[in-house]
Amino acid sequence: MRATVFHGPGDVRLETVPDPRLEDDRSVLVEVQHTAICGSDLHLYYGVHGAPGIHLGHEFVGTVVEAGAEVRRIGVGDQVLVSGVIGCGGCDACHAGDPVRCTGGGVRVFGNGLDLPGGQAELVAVPAADSACRVIPDGVTPEQAVMLTDILPTGWYGARRADITAGDTVAVIGLGPVGTFALQSALLLGAARVIAVDTVPERLDAAELLGAETVDAGAGTVAQVLEATGGRGVDAVIEAVGVDQTITDALYSCRPGGTVSVIGAHLGMEYPFPMGLAFLRDLTFRIGLCPVPSTWSELIPLVAADRIRPDDVITHRMGLSEVTEAYRLFDAREDGVRKILLDPTR
Amino acid sequence: MRATVFHGPGDVRLETVPDPRLEDDRSVLVEVQHTAICGSDLHLYYGVHGAPGIHLGHEFVGTVVEAGAEVRRIGVGDQVLVSGVIGCGGCDACHAGDPVRCTGGGVRVFGNGLDLPGGQAELVAVPAADSACRVIPDGVTPEQAVMLTDILPTGWYGARRADITAGDTVAVIGLGPVGTFALQSALLLGAARVIAVDTVPERLDAAELLGAETVDAGAGTVAQVLEATGGRGVDAVIEAVGVDQTITDALYSCRPGGTVSVIGAHLGMEYPFPMGLAFLRDLTFRIGLCPVPSTWSELIPLVAADRIRPDDVITHRMGLSEVTEAYRLFDAREDGVRKILLDPTR
Amino acid sequence: MRATVFHGPGDVRLETVPDPRLEDDRSVLVEVQHTAICGSDLHLYYGVHGAPGIHLGHEFVGTVVEAGAEVRRIGVGDQVLVSGVIGCGGCDACHAGDPVRCTGGGVRVFGNGLDLPGGQAELVAVPAADSACRVIPDGVTPEQAVMLTDILPTGWYGARRADITAGDTVAVIGLGPVGTFALQSALLLGAARVIAVDTVPERLDAAELLGAETVDAGAGTVAQVLEATGGRGVDAVIEAVGVDQTITDALYSCRPGGTVSVIGAHLGMEYPFPMGLAFLRDLTFRIGLCPVPSTWSELIPLVAADRIRPDDVITHRMGLSEVTEAYRLFDAREDGVRKILLDPTR
Amino acid sequence: MRATVFHGPGDVRLETVPDPRLEDDRSVLVEVQHTAICGSDLHLYYGVHGAPGIHLGHEFVGTVVEAGAEVRRIGVGDQVLVSGVIGCGGCDACHAGDPVRCTGGGVRVFGNGLDLPGGQAELVAVPAADSACRVIPDGVTPEQAVMLTDILPTGWYGARRADITAGDTVAVIGLGPVGTFALQSALLLGAARVIAVDTVPERLDAAELLGAETVDAGAGTVAQVLEATGGRGVDAVIEAVGVDQTITDALYSCRPGGTVSVIGAHLGMEYPFPMGLAFLRDLTFRIGLCPVPSTWSELIPLVAADRIRPDDVITHRMGLSEVTEAYRLFDAREDGVRKILLDPTR
Repeated sequence: MRATVFHGPGDVRLETVPDPRLEDDRSVLVEVQHTAICGSDLHLYYGVHGAPGIHLGHEFVGTVVEAGAEVRRIGVGDQVLVSGVIGCGGCDACHAGDPVRCTGGGVRVFGNGLDLPGGQAELVAVPAADSACRVIPDGVTPEQAVMLTDILPTGWYGARRADITAGDTVAVIGLGPVGTFALQSALLLGAARVIAVDTVPERLDAAELLGAETVDAGAGTVAQVLEATGGRGVDAVIEAVGVDQTITDALYSCRPGGTVSVIGAHLGMEYPFPMGLAFLRDLTFRIGLCPVPSTWSELIPLVAADRIRPDDVITHRMGLSEVTEAYRLFDAREDGVRKILLDPTR
Repeated sequence: MRATVFHGPGDVRLETVPDPRLEDDRSVLVEVQHTAICGSDLHLYYGVHGAPGIHLGHEFVGTVVEAGAEVRRIGVGDQVLVSGVIGCGGCDACHAGDPVRCTGGGVRVFGNGLDLPGGQAELVAVPAADSACRVIPDGVTPEQAVMLTDILPTGWYGARRADITAGDTVAVIGLGPVGTFALQSALLLGAARVIAVDTVPERLDAAELLGAETVDAGAGTVAQVLEATGGRGVDAVIEAVGVDQTITDALYSCRPGGTVSVIGAHLGMEYPFPMGLAFLRDLTFRIGLCPVPSTWSELIPLVAADRIRPDDVITHRMGLSEVTEAYRLFDAREDGVRKILLDPTR
Repeated sequence: MRATVFHGPGDVRLETVPDPRLEDDRSVLVEVQHTAICGSDLHLYYGVHGAPGIHLGHEFVGTVVEAGAEVRRIGVGDQVLVSGVIGCGGCDACHAGDPVRCTGGGVRVFGNGLDLPGGQAELVAVPAADSACRVIPDGVTPEQAVMLTDILPTGWYGARRADITAGDTVAVIGLGPVGTFALQSALLLGAARVIAVDTVPERLDAAELLGAETVDAGAGTVAQVLEATGGRGVDAVIEAVGVDQTITDALYSCRPGGTVSVIGAHLGMEYPFPMGLAFLRDLTFRIGLCPVPSTWSELIPLVAADRIRPDDVITHRMGLSEVTEAYRLFDAREDGVRKILLDPTR
Repeated sequence: MRATVFHGPGDVRLETVPDPRLEDDRSVLVEVQHTAICGSDLHLYYGVHGAPGIHLGHEFVGTVVEAGAEVRRIGVGDQVLVSGVIGCGGCDACHAGDPVRCTGGGVRVFGNGLDLPGGQAELVAVPAADSACRVIPDGVTPEQAVMLTDILPTGWYGARRADITAGDTVAVIGLGPVGTFALQSALLLGAARVIAVDTVPERLDAAELLGAETVDAGAGTVAQVLEATGGRGVDAVIEAVGVDQTITDALYSCRPGGTVSVIGAHLGMEYPFPMGLAFLRDLTFRIGLCPVPSTWSELIPLVAADRIRPDDVITHRMGLSEVTEAYRLFDAREDGVRKILLDPTR
């Protein structure tokens, strides 16, 4: 089959590789229908972590073409969405839909190392299938389902972990697809006002259409957020960038007793945390990888009921054979790109 | 001044009465700008409870024209909204905005007895003013503010007490103004689907426009709700009628582990509760009077941000001098009436 | 093997019956080490429900002697405790430890009908074993483990569903083993005061030793509870009897805004619920069957850490061959009996 | 009157100063009965912050000898406890007992600057008295009440903010009086196991008597905590020291999805936060000043019911005239000192 292989910084190619095999009787083989490139794939693309030979991609949906003997909840022929992160499938945490807290082997991420080959491919072997997969239900399109494998759950989880109470004012820093979903999630959870922060005018315009007020970070995030809240700060901040400056902005933008929820990946080990500020303001700070399947019981009905339309962020649909060009374009942020879907049949 | 006085079943008149006086230094005198007739006023109008001589009305907003020496948070000239239920203003419960749990004298309701003269009048004396009143903030119109004195909080509270989780399917039984607000509240709290139940086609049509699915109760509530949920029942039911049949329908429409939240007033003492059903389904059942001020921190920002437009239910604007006719029309449900606002200057 | 068979009201005998067989590959066969008689077994003993031929008993622990091919979490030779209620084991509810909300076939109870033969026997076939069984961990004795199969979880769940906040005053009505566990659970959850209500002096004395204040129900529950709380009522009531009078007492003993949690089984369909009282007091009312496995993550560590010693309620240890006498004695409440353990090897 | 005045690092003297006066009609004058020295007073004693001339002390109880005209909840002659932190008393946050979130002027601390003279004195003027004071109730001794003005609430708040679920294993790092109260609070909130960490053998012994397991930090906190939890980490950590090393230990000792709650004061602005660790473990981190009055509704009943005995930490009772020696002894940690109470009449 064909799969997207990382060869070195900036060097990604579609290649013919051996077909994947089931790890065990609890795995399924999925023939990919749609796959996507995620902002976090660029960390690998840049060579920040990872190693040559990795098969990339963790967002995909498709059809089950083979199922292990102990798989109970799905079967051959089912059209399924697959969580980008998976666990052992058998521990209490996995049963609760949370592979990040898996105690039976720990969390694994598709396409993020040599362990679990990725989804920008024609076929993927999915372990712990009863936990990792869900049949795409009525009312959800396959393209929407791709958004449910990682980025919509991540934006939602950021909002969920921000302790939003109805009537709150929430800031969202960073308006890529994940931040945009966090914005929509905050409104779905009852926020009265969302203050959307970015530097890109198109992103700010899109946020405004979704009901947010906007702040151009170029002119100073904290001062503007404080001004918009009568000097007090917002009730909650969702940070969707993952760099020191924006995390610091988040902490300084938050009112006493508020919560800062970081969903931008940040792997540094010495972020200069303003402890005195947090102490005097009695803040809650959260950061973490999203336990994707735990969000489905909330998100799938919301998507099926059309209360959120996650496929609106898709700007490009390309063939998997164009994956090299797709990565280039996505990295260069050309052509108004927000989210690229890849079709393995092309 | 002029006030609306109850003389007997169906007999309500505008009369000249002595001006009210402040009870103590913590009271204010409010010159009424808008007042409204509530569905619960009809209980008095019918003579179900209450006694001749009662000054009716518990929904009103206006301007402070006199303030006791110990009133701190509002002053003469402020345009305020006033909670229809009030407490002592000094106990922990009142400080938390909850006069229903008041331990310093218990809850009092405007216009509901001889104790606290009502708001369908030109002037009202408001005790415990720091707790009972709130300055109408920017972004909220006086007409919207009237809705914040009782019925929007009641609908909201019904939804709040229904344990709604994002993605839930919620049934709302009874689509008067309070039920309609409950419907909107359920959506604001993240419900994916709302199933709206009533017998009046116009009400069902209005609910559909707000995003609900509809069920005509005339054809059997429970069977239709079960059918709409694959036989399982809804996650939560908000009952906004307050009679035996609809409460029973609510209990039978609810899935195992779900919640039934009743906001329809029901004062019977021997409702035949299907305990065996509730036991096998592990249900939560709630009923109660809404602690209005506790809802304002959530609702005022939502109204100010235009996420809910409570004045949409107002169908009639009349002069207070027409109050007799207003009650007649409201009782008869003529002319598409949903909510009548009365202007004391006319 | 030998099993306890119900033949008619008051007629229970140990008989030789065919050995049970595994339903499917997800079942295990358990050789029973300890089993117990539960208060709810008396409903069957009296012939209130059930039919001749039922194999009784839903509280048992033992050793796995056979395991289906798809059982993952336990194996032959493991010493396990088994939930008295089970579900399909494969749905989201079952994965969350809640067979009562099972959507894959609904809840089943051992020894409660002809469907699932009971545990007062030498061998029991346990379906959905990964969900229903748990290896008895270090620090928990087998006798304590028997208490974890039904009655300790039920008492705990009653307290959990009572919305107890630290510092609360909680009434517990009914001081059998389940009520006694509810009392201890309320303290473990931070209650400051527990008011224990019963008519039996020995039970009241035992409650006092556990840290409760006591009320003799014979002298009127409600008046005494109100007096003990300055006229206000308790923050929460746990009802562990399940008859009309005590449920009514519970409702009238509760303060405004409080919660009544019923764990006594009540299968009546027309309990005269004092709706007006509940409306004016804004009460929460809950009743339900306990989803046993969902309590284990909390209770097993508490038992292992010796923070609760559930085996203290065991007063009698008899052979399974004495089961007829054990039922008689238990029913007659002779000899200070609280909980009888039966040993299948005797 | 006589008051404790700070003159420079290590230089604290009892001096005669002018009697305090009421700020306004909402203040009271309290004649101090008991006052105490707090660990946080040493920050001032060392000259870390603060300025010469400060009147020290924020833990005190006494009798109201003068009350402003608008004080409602307490009166002359009442024996009261006073929160060490206060707010305006009139905003929603203050009404909810949370002066740290005060929006009407912000939080103030007694004896922490020149603004609000301290409580190690014969008389103290207390603003916002209705919010800041509480009559010492039956069942609480005046010495216990001193513990309710700061350090018991702080320990409790640390546990409250640690998201403890019944059955959890909780680490407490730092076993001074506040950490010891956190330990007891964790048990009151349902923790199954508490792992108490310090370097002082006497403190570890005391923790063991209270039911904790102990870890000598000198031998490496993280490794021992991980070992005690099967390599997984504890569910929650309460950090009661406030220095970089122990905060880092706390973060590394916490399981995926767990919470670190810091109640040690830390005013640094560049703590090197291990963001990558927190991201991969999906942690919650909290730090803050305790909103003392918000804890009273929970703690006062618990103390009155003898479920916690906070006066057990008092090791020394001295006269206020010995305050210089008391500070020396407290700083030097001589004579097994844990908590010193000072009597203004001596």
